[in-house]
Amino acid sequence: MELGDNQYGKAEVRLVRVDRDGPQHRLTDLTVTTTLAGDLAATHLTGDNAGVLPTDTQKNVVYAFARDGVGQIEDFALRLARHFVDTTPTIDRARVHIDEHSWDRVGGHSFAKGAGTRSTTVSASADGEWVVSGVGDLVLLNTTGSEFHGFHRDEYTTLQETSDRILATAVSARWRHAEPTDWGTSATAARAALIGAFAATHSLSLQQTLYAMGQKVLEASSSIAEVRLSLPNRHHFLVDLQPFGLDNPGEVFFAADRPYGLIEGAVRRPGAPEPGLAWW
Amino acid sequence: MELGDNQYGKAEVRLVRVDRDGPQHRLTDLTVTTTLAGDLAATHLTGDNAGVLPTDTQKNVVYAFARDGVGQIEDFALRLARHFVDTTPTIDRARVHIDEHSWDRVGGHSFAKGAGTRSTTVSASADGEWVVSGVGDLVLLNTTGSEFHGFHRDEYTTLQETSDRILATAVSARWRHAEPTDWGTSATAARAALIGAFAATHSLSLQQTLYAMGQKVLEASSSIAEVRLSLPNRHHFLVDLQPFGLDNPGEVFFAADRPYGLIEGAVRRPGAPEPGLAWW
Amino acid sequence: MELGDNQYGKAEVRLVRVDRDGPQHRLTDLTVTTTLAGDLAATHLTGDNAGVLPTDTQKNVVYAFARDGVGQIEDFALRLARHFVDTTPTIDRARVHIDEHSWDRVGGHSFAKGAGTRSTTVSASADGEWVVSGVGDLVLLNTTGSEFHGFHRDEYTTLQETSDRILATAVSARWRHAEPTDWGTSATAARAALIGAFAATHSLSLQQTLYAMGQKVLEASSSIAEVRLSLPNRHHFLVDLQPFGLDNPGEVFFAADRPYGLIEGAVRRPGAPEPGLAWW
Amino acid sequence: MELGDNQYGKAEVRLVRVDRDGPQHRLTDLTVTTTLAGDLAATHLTGDNAGVLPTDTQKNVVYAFARDGVGQIEDFALRLARHFVDTTPTIDRARVHIDEHSWDRVGGHSFAKGAGTRSTTVSASADGEWVVSGVGDLVLLNTTGSEFHGFHRDEYTTLQETSDRILATAVSARWRHAEPTDWGTSATAARAALIGAFAATHSLSLQQTLYAMGQKVLEASSSIAEVRLSLPNRHHFLVDLQPFGLDNPGEVFFAADRPYGLIEGAVRRPGAPEPGLAWW
Repeated sequence: MELGDNQYGKAEVRLVRVDRDGPQHRLTDLTVTTTLAGDLAATHLTGDNAGVLPTDTQKNVVYAFARDGVGQIEDFALRLARHFVDTTPTIDRARVHIDEHSWDRVGGHSFAKGAGTRSTTVSASADGEWVVSGVGDLVLLNTTGSEFHGFHRDEYTTLQETSDRILATAVSARWRHAEPTDWGTSATAARAALIGAFAATHSLSLQQTLYAMGQKVLEASSSIAEVRLSLPNRHHFLVDLQPFGLDNPGEVFFAADRPYGLIEGAVRRPGAPEPGLAWW
Repeated sequence: MELGDNQYGKAEVRLVRVDRDGPQHRLTDLTVTTTLAGDLAATHLTGDNAGVLPTDTQKNVVYAFARDGVGQIEDFALRLARHFVDTTPTIDRARVHIDEHSWDRVGGHSFAKGAGTRSTTVSASADGEWVVSGVGDLVLLNTTGSEFHGFHRDEYTTLQETSDRILATAVSARWRHAEPTDWGTSATAARAALIGAFAATHSLSLQQTLYAMGQKVLEASSSIAEVRLSLPNRHHFLVDLQPFGLDNPGEVFFAADRPYGLIEGAVRRPGAPEPGLAWW
Repeated sequence: MELGDNQYGKAEVRLVRVDRDGPQHRLTDLTVTTTLAGDLAATHLTGDNAGVLPTDTQKNVVYAFARDGVGQIEDFALRLARHFVDTTPTIDRARVHIDEHSWDRVGGHSFAKGAGTRSTTVSASADGEWVVSGVGDLVLLNTTGSEFHGFHRDEYTTLQETSDRILATAVSARWRHAEPTDWGTSATAARAALIGAFAATHSLSLQQTLYAMGQKVLEASSSIAEVRLSLPNRHHFLVDLQPFGLDNPGEVFFAADRPYGLIEGAVRRPGAPEPGLAWW
Repeated sequence: MELGDNQYGKAEVRLVRVDRDGPQHRLTDLTVTTTLAGDLAATHLTGDNAGVLPTDTQKNVVYAFARDGVGQIEDFALRLARHFVDTTPTIDRARVHIDEHSWDRVGGHSFAKGAGTRSTTVSASADGEWVVSGVGDLVLLNTTGSEFHGFHRDEYTTLQETSDRILATAVSARWRHAEPTDWGTSATAARAALIGAFAATHSLSLQQTLYAMGQKVLEASSSIAEVRLSLPNRHHFLVDLQPFGLDNPGEVFFAADRPYGLIEGAVRRPGAPEPGLAWW
């Protein structure tokens, strides 16, 4: 037998940082996952750990580096990923994923947790760095402006066509950068583009909305080369109220849990550079 | 053997209602649970279901009643609870619990899901109705202004005293009303009071903060007779960076999952009426 | 304003104990929650913590007491609850809840996690101790032998009567003891009684099954005074295959998530002593 | 902008099938996800759905095909995947993922849910089919026989070396087949190999255990070409009882939630065929 691809790291390091240097405290709330790969055959084959930087150490590095400040999560992930590649002899590639949880200020040193996360995945090797940014926990709903008809029908098709339905999804979006940018400004613009495109697109399919969302993200930030979107279709079914002598003109819905449609796709800028390790 | 207390109902009916009558659509997103009690011995003892209103029917009632509009969740729960008691011969008591999920408008017919839920629990019997309102999914954090010292020490106590710590909690609050009020205005005021008291209280213990939060809710709305709070203490531990030659002046924290402190308490208005079935 | 009922403690202390004294290791995997109540007004009203035993100390006690061995979870909870009441001046009442996670032996020192938990909730005060035992994470399903008809119908009732359905539930059961017993033997017998009664009862309603389950638990162990059951009705809907030219003679089902029926009830031994603090 | 890789399908179709043809009923409990890819540009770019088989139809196919019986999940997934590719003009590739939830018989028509899932992911195109099998929800723990020392140390390393620790993980394993086999027998053998290798390996690192587990799966079933394992390291920390005057000879542990190590790797049979679409 032979060893194939392998990697290891520390998952879900919970880091909260308080910046106390201004008139008001600032709060940064991160979940950090580090992943390392390289020449790790010995520990797999014989249990010789001489080339293994402990995952406990990886966690320590996250906390120690936060002492100097975190800044934009892409920059923090770049520092961490570069460190692991540069200082660990056996490690050729490092990937650092960060979810940043949002908090709204409700006082000089007080915060309320908001919805939505911003994320980044940075990969580094001897050949360079690759930065992916993203958002999660972004649930959007249009009460109208969504149709679905003209689809392929076969003997198993019972779905009615509709010219007016609720369209709802939990956006999971990631985009890779072709070059460094102002990460914070770019993330804000991308998030606004996602929401704006979802709201503004008169949708004939969730796929069409997906493409529009990706397109708008690319238009919003010239550094972005490609957007990948995963959009669950959170079905809302019109309730049949006829047994109770009532009509239901698009007002009363049952929000279903499972099953759900799942639409996934990428939108790219023509001529964009190769992804390299971006999606590793 | 003998039958003791019993009840039954339909849990977690997912209802989304769209109001289309104004220039902009309005969205109401609820999870409704109904619970009925009364003379239900026959179904338990012999399987005679003549006195059992099916839970499926309870679900139907939720959807059918939504056809006329939902309005404030307390009012919707009152309609539902009163209906079950008044129309089902065997049923003496009904309880309707509703969680209302928050959405922020991002377009004329577009919404993004926000953080936080508003809730109500209404109980009804031949003797009257009891209304409890509440909030959930409200996570608050103070970066400073929290101390904990002077506590009881015994041979198992190793905790260091602190005069500056992070204080964080996920507020679960419920309050009962002594009389009807403008439910929406009251809920907004109570939520603001909870956040305001958490932020403004220089805390010597989470218990002290709990009491201040309850007190402010009672002060904010004269209809409220009692507030019950459950506050998990989401511990944030200062990371020891000394092994890396670094100090840590209250800046880098590990956010722990388990175990957590759990502080629970009630604050009452003196002379408030008895709770009746409010907390059933 | 005035302080009402209040309590505090440490929730979800994760304790794993290895007994190494026999030829094979034994494994005990617990989640322990402690709750204390008493004269705690000072910390609420002024932040004076002199009467507050830190929740961190409560956690320490759980680990320290485990050094002597855990034994049956009821005994361990009794030791803990009694300790807090007897040694903390302000504390009048203590409650200790333990979930024991099941593991199956797959080697001399190797285990695989199984389904199901055993639980206990012990309360102690100056007046005595009260022991509740229970099970959780016990999901049962009958493919036949379940009917539901003859129920109350009103204008909102659309449910079809059925003489053969799937009956499925996730059992949550707790029972209080009137006197000490061999906790392990009793728990094993009660669990077997729950499963046996669910399987053996030809059910005309889930309420009938609930009563039978409670009855069999009481018959199985003379120390048990009362059983409380909470049984979600995990609906399995027969799929309509007629659009595809197929019948469906009770074979193909959709397992729904929400909403679900929720049936709750108690079965008592006549003449059983009062519950005291058992259900606190 | 241009459309990149895309796919869509129905996620988490909950199918329960009862086989009633024998003296005892048999129960099959599946969660099925279908994913289709092909020429789907039109729906993304213009909302023209003529090439889109609705996800609702995909769900219908799952239920309709179950009418004939499910059999081994690999066979059922093969039927489904092949159907979508063969009958939908725009679809070039289909992937069907199935999780099979385990139930233990407790009566002639009664079952209790067990731990562990068996899974499959089948991909089909005009070029053939690829079958991946796997297990999930398999949590294993060794109380001894695990060491970790001799690892790479740098300035951020504080971890103590250990020659005796608890090793615990939640196994997620998937393996691809080079040729058809008796799927049920193979799955049983692979599961036994995973558990056996975990228990029998004196571990110097979780990586070493991972490799041994993969190796044993390959040895157990000659049809298997490659095994991929993802093993979270569920850390159990020895509790320091010295403050209470107690030693702790490997007996009392704190089971931590986060962060956790995450070890991932593949083991291959030399000369195995290329994976094709197996890991799509």
